Amino acid sequence: MYEVEIKVPADLERVRGRLDELGATRTDAVVQADTYYDAPHRSFPKTDEALRIRSERPEGGDDEMRLTYKGPLVDDESKTREEIETAVADGEKVDAILTKLGFDAAATVRKDRERFALEGYAITLDSVNDVGEYVEVETEAAGEADLESAREGAYEIVERLGLDPDDQIRTSYLGLLLAG
Amino acid sequence: MYEVEIKVPADLERVRGRLDELGATRTDAVVQADTYYDAPHRSFPKTDEALRIRSERPEGGDDEMRLTYKGPLVDDESKTREEIETAVADGEKVDAILTKLGFDAAATVRKDRERFALEGYAITLDSVNDVGEYVEVETEAAGEADLESAREGAYEIVERLGLDPDDQIRTSYLGLLLAG
Repeated sequence: MYEVEIKVPADLERVRGRLDELGATRTDAVVQADTYYDAPHRSFPKTDEALRIRSERPEGGDDEMRLTYKGPLVDDESKTREEIETAVADGEKVDAILTKLGFDAAATVRKDRERFALEGYAITLDSVNDVGEYVEVETEAAGEADLESAREGAYEIVERLGLDPDDQIRTSYLGLLLAG
Repeated sequence: MYEVEIKVPADLERVRGRLDELGATRTDAVVQADTYYDAPHRSFPKTDEALRIRSERPEGGDDEMRLTYKGPLVDDESKTREEIETAVADGEKVDAILTKLGFDAAATVRKDRERFALEGYAITLDSVNDVGEYVEVETEAAGEADLESAREGAYEIVERLGLDPDDQIRTSYLGLLLAG
């Protein structure tokens, strides 16, 4: 399974109007706070790994906490990473344990995230604190053969939302936050 | 709050009989598997720290998983350590994350643990795989002034269980397992 993902900066209010006109389905909305950690014995930016505690609050729900490890890119083309994740009861306790072990919280990315579905594509409207507003268009391709058509379909969705695929950025929100 | 804890090797079947005669209350029983980790950047035996994933199955219940950090002794007298613990949804995922970060599982201590209550003392019967059978007698003292009488009370319980307080051992089950 291959994941196709395009991220472009956007005026979310306008995109919301376009989604309405296109008849997209609003899936859900969450508030996420992602804290990324530095390791005491490795440079995660160099090894292309990440260690994260995510706190996610669904609409009308309670905070859910997850601990996630992301491995380096498996290959350049598919942008596939190994990801290991589990729910934890108390994110502050996990933070305290990591801190005791010498892992330091490097930065926290906070965002409001609203999700829509349209013709097999997942469309996410992200309002990221201190970073800006972005739209992500995502879909999956079963194999390499389908990758190109999935990508073209995603570009088309981006255009129908009134956005320009050429504005695409590949930097993570963490990268954008640290660069800002 | 000070914790008084005495651990002695014992024949659990005989101790069970004594507990019955003394009218002790059986509290509960659990099966525990504790996996301890080595750190890639520190020697936990030297720093007197521990990182553990505990899998605990209560009677008739499902496995519960917890991640625990234990800090070094705060002082020699009270045997007090900082302990930070949180429940996790998937212990195998936490193990996989720790392994990816360079923490290696050093050893797993498995034990059947049966708990009783008697006159303000908690009495635990531990059958530890590859280590042996032990009884722990525990209580808390509100302050240093009460420590000596709490300790004497615990010795008395040990004797009433037909055991000898002089057999007391201070080595952890992990230490006993690794030494065996």
